[in-house]
Amino acid sequence: MVVVMNERATEAEIQAVVAQLVEMGFDVHRSTGVNRTVIGAVGNGVGDPQLLEVQGGVQEVLRITEPYKLASRTFKPDNSVITIGDVRIGGDEVVVMAGPCSAESEEQVETTAAAVKRAGAKVLRGGAFKPRSSPYSFQGLGEPGLKMLRAAADRHDLRLITEVMEIGQIEVVERYSDIFQVGARNMQNFSLLRELGRTRKPVMVKRGISATIEEWLLSAEYVLAGGNTDVMLCERGIRTFESYTRNTLDISAIPVVQKLSHLPVIVDPSHGTGRRDKVAAMARASVAAGADGLIIEVHNDPDHARSDGAQSMFPQQFERLMAELRIIAPAIGRSICVETVARRGWSR
Amino acid sequence: MVVVMNERATEAEIQAVVAQLVEMGFDVHRSTGVNRTVIGAVGNGVGDPQLLEVQGGVQEVLRITEPYKLASRTFKPDNSVITIGDVRIGGDEVVVMAGPCSAESEEQVETTAAAVKRAGAKVLRGGAFKPRSSPYSFQGLGEPGLKMLRAAADRHDLRLITEVMEIGQIEVVERYSDIFQVGARNMQNFSLLRELGRTRKPVMVKRGISATIEEWLLSAEYVLAGGNTDVMLCERGIRTFESYTRNTLDISAIPVVQKLSHLPVIVDPSHGTGRRDKVAAMARASVAAGADGLIIEVHNDPDHARSDGAQSMFPQQFERLMAELRIIAPAIGRSICVETVARRGWSR
Amino acid sequence: MVVVMNERATEAEIQAVVAQLVEMGFDVHRSTGVNRTVIGAVGNGVGDPQLLEVQGGVQEVLRITEPYKLASRTFKPDNSVITIGDVRIGGDEVVVMAGPCSAESEEQVETTAAAVKRAGAKVLRGGAFKPRSSPYSFQGLGEPGLKMLRAAADRHDLRLITEVMEIGQIEVVERYSDIFQVGARNMQNFSLLRELGRTRKPVMVKRGISATIEEWLLSAEYVLAGGNTDVMLCERGIRTFESYTRNTLDISAIPVVQKLSHLPVIVDPSHGTGRRDKVAAMARASVAAGADGLIIEVHNDPDHARSDGAQSMFPQQFERLMAELRIIAPAIGRSICVETVARRGWSR
Amino acid sequence: MVVVMNERATEAEIQAVVAQLVEMGFDVHRSTGVNRTVIGAVGNGVGDPQLLEVQGGVQEVLRITEPYKLASRTFKPDNSVITIGDVRIGGDEVVVMAGPCSAESEEQVETTAAAVKRAGAKVLRGGAFKPRSSPYSFQGLGEPGLKMLRAAADRHDLRLITEVMEIGQIEVVERYSDIFQVGARNMQNFSLLRELGRTRKPVMVKRGISATIEEWLLSAEYVLAGGNTDVMLCERGIRTFESYTRNTLDISAIPVVQKLSHLPVIVDPSHGTGRRDKVAAMARASVAAGADGLIIEVHNDPDHARSDGAQSMFPQQFERLMAELRIIAPAIGRSICVETVARRGWSR
Repeated sequence: MVVVMNERATEAEIQAVVAQLVEMGFDVHRSTGVNRTVIGAVGNGVGDPQLLEVQGGVQEVLRITEPYKLASRTFKPDNSVITIGDVRIGGDEVVVMAGPCSAESEEQVETTAAAVKRAGAKVLRGGAFKPRSSPYSFQGLGEPGLKMLRAAADRHDLRLITEVMEIGQIEVVERYSDIFQVGARNMQNFSLLRELGRTRKPVMVKRGISATIEEWLLSAEYVLAGGNTDVMLCERGIRTFESYTRNTLDISAIPVVQKLSHLPVIVDPSHGTGRRDKVAAMARASVAAGADGLIIEVHNDPDHARSDGAQSMFPQQFERLMAELRIIAPAIGRSICVETVARRGWSR
Repeated sequence: MVVVMNERATEAEIQAVVAQLVEMGFDVHRSTGVNRTVIGAVGNGVGDPQLLEVQGGVQEVLRITEPYKLASRTFKPDNSVITIGDVRIGGDEVVVMAGPCSAESEEQVETTAAAVKRAGAKVLRGGAFKPRSSPYSFQGLGEPGLKMLRAAADRHDLRLITEVMEIGQIEVVERYSDIFQVGARNMQNFSLLRELGRTRKPVMVKRGISATIEEWLLSAEYVLAGGNTDVMLCERGIRTFESYTRNTLDISAIPVVQKLSHLPVIVDPSHGTGRRDKVAAMARASVAAGADGLIIEVHNDPDHARSDGAQSMFPQQFERLMAELRIIAPAIGRSICVETVARRGWSR
Repeated sequence: MVVVMNERATEAEIQAVVAQLVEMGFDVHRSTGVNRTVIGAVGNGVGDPQLLEVQGGVQEVLRITEPYKLASRTFKPDNSVITIGDVRIGGDEVVVMAGPCSAESEEQVETTAAAVKRAGAKVLRGGAFKPRSSPYSFQGLGEPGLKMLRAAADRHDLRLITEVMEIGQIEVVERYSDIFQVGARNMQNFSLLRELGRTRKPVMVKRGISATIEEWLLSAEYVLAGGNTDVMLCERGIRTFESYTRNTLDISAIPVVQKLSHLPVIVDPSHGTGRRDKVAAMARASVAAGADGLIIEVHNDPDHARSDGAQSMFPQQFERLMAELRIIAPAIGRSICVETVARRGWSR
Repeated sequence: MVVVMNERATEAEIQAVVAQLVEMGFDVHRSTGVNRTVIGAVGNGVGDPQLLEVQGGVQEVLRITEPYKLASRTFKPDNSVITIGDVRIGGDEVVVMAGPCSAESEEQVETTAAAVKRAGAKVLRGGAFKPRSSPYSFQGLGEPGLKMLRAAADRHDLRLITEVMEIGQIEVVERYSDIFQVGARNMQNFSLLRELGRTRKPVMVKRGISATIEEWLLSAEYVLAGGNTDVMLCERGIRTFESYTRNTLDISAIPVVQKLSHLPVIVDPSHGTGRRDKVAAMARASVAAGADGLIIEVHNDPDHARSDGAQSMFPQQFERLMAELRIIAPAIGRSICVETVARRGWSR
């Protein structure tokens, strides 16, 4: 770290800061300028930069290393590719995950799964445990919902992603799902992240609505530090003063994260906008900006969905969107799945 | 809810919205104006306003009832007062909770507890399970820390508040603590909130750094809906573009919440600013604005604290602050504890 | 507007609100529900909704009309197309404006203009009057800069856009430029907007860094209300808590504005990111999301630019970007100029 | 500035950065650590830190000096006190400015002026030129309004503050007013600030709704750099995601600014909340946090005000507030005016 002393700092104050840095275990370099002194601290010291900030004579403390390690490109320069059967996330192909917000019935899950498969999705999304702002809202079907999703995914040769909300649900979710989804509200549920680090299935960590990119990478670090290397990130909109959209989808997070980290970046334009009529524009923008994948809510009858109906696409809208994305992807040297006939033979 | 149709909405679109509202179970009143039609939906219908927003011809959907019930002043017009032994939170006295960020050692806990008691605090704060952004930071002492805190609280006739991070910790925390604290990052950990609703000890719900006041009250509602009526709220700063302070303490949330809800509002100026030299100013402002209590980090040796040292006050700073608060409280008809000699005789 | 009374509102309070609405000139409809009363006010009354919000018994006041008129799609359902010679902004072609942040020298302006023309830009951008946060920064060359820009634009058959900062500069800027640019910091400089409404050259209004979409459209309304119908909007990033990028480019503003208004929407990915290496990704995203145009900073030698060098592209980066955009535009039925040989014959 | 190279930076990249810093005129210190190299640049070089951020091998560029000079406490360690007749702003007394949003009529100005004087205000506030978001709103009475305000101020021995919106209004405003107010929307109207720097009357610069504290101080710097040393700052709320209040009043800005700068800090709780029933709480909080003054909207008949009625206090509310403030101020060693009988004899 670098400690910038203010212009009126006394020699005693400077000495005190140097002494404290030495006590923390740092090597110290002091640059005494005409106007101000700057103290560099390098090496493997341990200490809280904020602690120095309140010392006498200190103007500012500047951190010079990222607090995350395993998630950073410095640690692993090449892109991570997560392989689930024949699906590769983080490779040349932009992977599209699609499906209903929640599993509601056999018929709804099956119809939607068939539709998204036909349009080119590779992964089925769908929730059985739903985190809802209000205790009075529909909270999901639980394990029966997971069974419906798994069966539909198998019938259509799709992988499955579903949300896990608490440690107690990990076992049952792992039994049915191929990818664990950690929701935005749980991005800093560190107990849950730590436990997921002990599993061996891929984890997708959604960005909290007001999480900085650094905090988001630190949450991924919790999973990585547990030994699970298959982590992907999901941008789903941040909270700003603008209220025409439910959230402001931070498209620029895509290139920023791809520079800082080797982990794949997925974008969720459904939650990112909250309105069906804005999803396609933001999905196209995400692919154009370089996203490694998309996760999109599609429902066979959105007007009667038990949750998130307003942001769920009709199957035919989703199909048209996939056609548009196939035009855009080559602009940045990528492709989108075009298959419409289910292949068989991959088993979990 | 009120559905505002746009000026070019067709009669068929208007009819479709009316039909959908009827299907949801609402009574419908239609006001046909010169320029536009407005449709009011009242009664006990069930439906997602956002769903209507994406229908043809709809300009805007306006919700007219708060989604929380038990937390609202409409439900309970009088202030809730939470009683723990002889401490009453939400009454005329402004209750001050103080102590270290984390329990680190017997000596640290004891010295700090003695100091805050002497200055007039009524509740000891301190953490044993610490949610940390980085997996590499100090994570707390666990149960041994709880024991230290309980013993010190008992020695000084203080109540105890400590954080619970996950469902699995509820039992052990309940054994030692008088008040459960739910941290900002867990404000929407609905599984945890639901479980705390089944306990019978008071719960303090901190506001998430980007939670709206409505979401915050909905989180309190999760606890209340479980049957636990002793809920208090804690404002601890929201995330804004300004970066001179760690967060922007939203002082105006105090009068806003007090109008909407009957629950006591506590303010945490330590996390709200992140810097020791700003804590006193914000603590004074909170009391002047009408807060029912404060929760403040105090450490006997903040420069060597294992967490949050930069925002922890020295005991003598805290004592001076308490003297200032005693001048301010009467301006709004309230008081601050002045006792400096521990009374005995209250047992948990 | 709709006034929602709270559940405990008395009959006298309800009557008082009705009386006040009548005094304001509204027609009033009262819906008395089981739990609460809702009062609708329609017609041509004049009044401040906030005024009612502080009356006794009022829970909330909901506005049901947009405060802007001429800028809205209700007023003009078809897209506005702004024609400047043979350039049409708001039509099928996505128009690209490019050039240096500031005019610095004859050679810099000429080299850059030649490069952007070759790559397919239709409009030259460049500043002569620079609004700078610090009084000690380079403030632009003034009229000599305008002359350089005009001459280069003419040589390469480009239209010219440049910023006007104050009323006193309108005359000189009008003499040289084809489009007036109003910067983000001046978005609510109402005196300037009003004066520009009296000119007859197109005006591009940049969105303030914390302006809501409604405020932005109201600023456009100031120009339109003066009689100047050639107004375009420019999204250039909003201020959020995220600090990896200078601003957060709000890509979702593109479809939102296009639904609310008939005015063309341009995007500025240079200011929107503040970093050269993020500009291409965000420019592609903007076109994919449906932007009507882009305005991009390009400099022949960005490392020695007197302002905004970090966000200025090298000419060859810009050329590569234009090639990528030509792949993306057809995905949404649009095109990008491909000409590389300057045509002649259009005169201002 | 300090340039932090990333761990994989090559020797050539490091050399290139050193060369560029030397070219900018800096003295360069290079610290080669085990993991990374840090380059310190001190002295009087001139250059844009962002420019270095996009160079190869650079991880981050950290600025170590504030960009403002005359506004900083480093430049002037003692508090600035602005004297206008017998009113001293920035001294021990907390100065209260109060009055209507806009001058509307002789009677309204006179009645309100008399009321605020009686309650202890020292400065009359009131607008004659109003910046309004909508071109269709009341825009102020202009010079006749200024005359009314001046006459009422003189009758009650009050100083006068009023807003100036554009360069063309400076002369007329200067003729009537004692203090120029620069509104939040004009905080970065640099042309206006520069001109006000050439006047010799005090200037109050309101903080833009999304201005960082640094930008705000830079705007003050524009006025100071012109030779006008009587500058005061006014916090009036920032824009956040929270929408229950019109803005979020940033009370913590008070101690932050007072540490960074010697200029007095005034708080405007009327615009900061937008609602009359929240003004008193925030005014008390501001004084408790150490504000040097307040500016509050008071109207003799707020329900019929032509602007900002919802946030204007009734005279009796204001009087009660002043009584509360007189209890609070001594907590931090300050006072509030108690006179209720107008003194005479001071002439502008």
